[in-house]
Amino acid sequence: MALIVQKFGGTSVKDRSRIYNVARIVADTRNAGNDVVVVVSAQGDTTDDLIEKAAEITSNPSAREMDMLLATGEQISIALLTMALNEIGCPAISLTGWQAGFKTDRAYTKARIHRMDTERLESELGRGRVVVCAGFQGINRMDDITTLGRGGSDTSAVAIAAALHADRCQIFTDVEGVYTADPRKIPNAKKLKEITFDEMLELASLGAQVLNNRSVELGKKYGVEMEVLSSLNPMPGTIVREVCKDMEGMLIKGVARDDDVAVISILEVPDRPGMSFKVFGSLAQKKINVDIILQSTGRNGNKDLTFTVPAKDAELAVACLKENSGRIGSSDIHVNRDVAKVSIVGAGMQSHAGVASTMFEALYEANINIMMISTSEIKISVILDKKDAEQAVRAIHSAFVH
Amino acid sequence: MALIVQKFGGTSVKDRSRIYNVARIVADTRNAGNDVVVVVSAQGDTTDDLIEKAAEITSNPSAREMDMLLATGEQISIALLTMALNEIGCPAISLTGWQAGFKTDRAYTKARIHRMDTERLESELGRGRVVVCAGFQGINRMDDITTLGRGGSDTSAVAIAAALHADRCQIFTDVEGVYTADPRKIPNAKKLKEITFDEMLELASLGAQVLNNRSVELGKKYGVEMEVLSSLNPMPGTIVREVCKDMEGMLIKGVARDDDVAVISILEVPDRPGMSFKVFGSLAQKKINVDIILQSTGRNGNKDLTFTVPAKDAELAVACLKENSGRIGSSDIHVNRDVAKVSIVGAGMQSHAGVASTMFEALYEANINIMMISTSEIKISVILDKKDAEQAVRAIHSAFVH
Repeated sequence: MALIVQKFGGTSVKDRSRIYNVARIVADTRNAGNDVVVVVSAQGDTTDDLIEKAAEITSNPSAREMDMLLATGEQISIALLTMALNEIGCPAISLTGWQAGFKTDRAYTKARIHRMDTERLESELGRGRVVVCAGFQGINRMDDITTLGRGGSDTSAVAIAAALHADRCQIFTDVEGVYTADPRKIPNAKKLKEITFDEMLELASLGAQVLNNRSVELGKKYGVEMEVLSSLNPMPGTIVREVCKDMEGMLIKGVARDDDVAVISILEVPDRPGMSFKVFGSLAQKKINVDIILQSTGRNGNKDLTFTVPAKDAELAVACLKENSGRIGSSDIHVNRDVAKVSIVGAGMQSHAGVASTMFEALYEANINIMMISTSEIKISVILDKKDAEQAVRAIHSAFVH
Repeated sequence: MALIVQKFGGTSVKDRSRIYNVARIVADTRNAGNDVVVVVSAQGDTTDDLIEKAAEITSNPSAREMDMLLATGEQISIALLTMALNEIGCPAISLTGWQAGFKTDRAYTKARIHRMDTERLESELGRGRVVVCAGFQGINRMDDITTLGRGGSDTSAVAIAAALHADRCQIFTDVEGVYTADPRKIPNAKKLKEITFDEMLELASLGAQVLNNRSVELGKKYGVEMEVLSSLNPMPGTIVREVCKDMEGMLIKGVARDDDVAVISILEVPDRPGMSFKVFGSLAQKKINVDIILQSTGRNGNKDLTFTVPAKDAELAVACLKENSGRIGSSDIHVNRDVAKVSIVGAGMQSHAGVASTMFEALYEANINIMMISTSEIKISVILDKKDAEQAVRAIHSAFVH
């Protein structure tokens, strides 16, 4: 007998038949002798509908009232799922975020969980009930309702699993697990049996959005074994844990593509100490994340500085740099938005020579030019022309996954 | 400066324009120098939509989960109305039932308010904010959400007014006040300036559903001055209070018609002690309310027993009486559903002779036959053929309201 936390997203509970599908998965897990805590999101488009209702009233709603409004979405889901569980003979009870003990800070619309008060949860489990908790929401010190931001239900599920020392936290989605590449685009993409938290974090940040990053970080912090699996096709999914046995010996865990990137170049910056600080310090003040940085070797007392930022921040970054052009000593600033980042991720690569060269060889044979390169212990990223990105993913995937 | 509680029903907040209409009424009241607590119901058809969602899942939902589901309706309203108040520059904050301190018993779907914890309410008022509370809902000792049943928002408003010793509790509806008769049917019906709690209770129980009876009972118990008025046509409405000045000298406060009535007759019941107890005791066990009772004088050791019950209970009453026909000593039972009750209500009548005879004269002149008569200190009711009821209301109204 184990304690299992199961999280189901909005599409998994969007209508009567999907709710009963979830109810049967939960009941089967309980009937196999497990204690079960379920975390659900708002049904289908409910959250968007509520946002639309607020937009009709004002373009600038108070964040507190927004959370008051949005929290109703999950409250509807938990009541309906609990009714369905009862209907198929599975004892169950629903708990809102505040009833389930999610204590958060007061950052409305993007709150962070400070603490879990598990008294009520444990008491209901002790009575042999499945506990159906509202994801995405909590309560702050003033007893006001907060929400955790989009994707917060994954975080809710991992927080419960951590607080209750659950044996596993299953995140049900519309895919059957984590793949070596997007299976809709790369037909021979392979489903992974296991992946480490670090690898999962790298893949998620690269646009392979299977799990919300905050939930993976929380899982890593508290050592919660997670599993990504499908609610429509119940079979073992992909386990996310600290260390993988790596029986498969697969060098890389995935090839990912990220289009949300722009390359900014500042030409002929005076080659003086503190110049990088002036450039990147001014961007940091605007909360712009800089990813890959490339600095040319100095020539004639000048150097070129090239770096990537999220595409949506490019305009703000350029404005910020132009504002500071006096201090930086150069106003010759170029932006390239027609780029993409393609990366390979895998803890295996750090102990295997030749991973990078295999990747570069695959790109060379596909006649694709590399604009920038960045490496870390478990990731190699290249910046390419956007038009080459899809072919690049195919070529790299073929080189590593057979 | 006064403290005023204002309650708005579901149609008053059904869409953007109605929400802003309510916001302006509230802001005007605050700008006139008052503290304001607002109580709102769920928008328009929201409650019915939620009931429909539950019905898709099961025909027999748990009452606790039903309350969990339904409570979302008011939570949406309070957030939207608060956003609208903020948008027009009126500082406001929303509170759910549990945040506003409604402590109830555990009778899910029909809970009663035990206690109000007004700490949060008073603290928000102290900060100069309008407090927008969810009506219809509360929390029980297990920290579970309860609802007060249909019409519960009126009760919520009066409970807050009582707990905060508010100067007035305004119930905004789609009519401009309490009328001497249904103004849609009797064109010269007059709006009353004042009415007593007792008169209001009699009128409400007679089918003139302006205020929920529970709220009037609570208002009477705690001496909360109530006002019924229109949210679309803001002008003074009708005040409901313990004692009216009665400057108008109007003998009666209203003529009301109730079609939810059936007459049951048991013929030739043996004229023995305890017979009434056997008949009405068996009905009370089935929770059937008996209203008017008429007992013929005994003859040949038998008597006839005639009484009225709510129309919906007639079938159950007859089945119950037939089951007990052995003990009662008669199985000759007749039901007449083609009847209506027409009543006049007014505290004035008890000190004025001739009220009953004026009523009976009006019916005689309209050639309407009276089947049963019942009188109390502030009410005279007659049972008539249903087809005569509308003409009877007109005739009686003309005789009293000029």
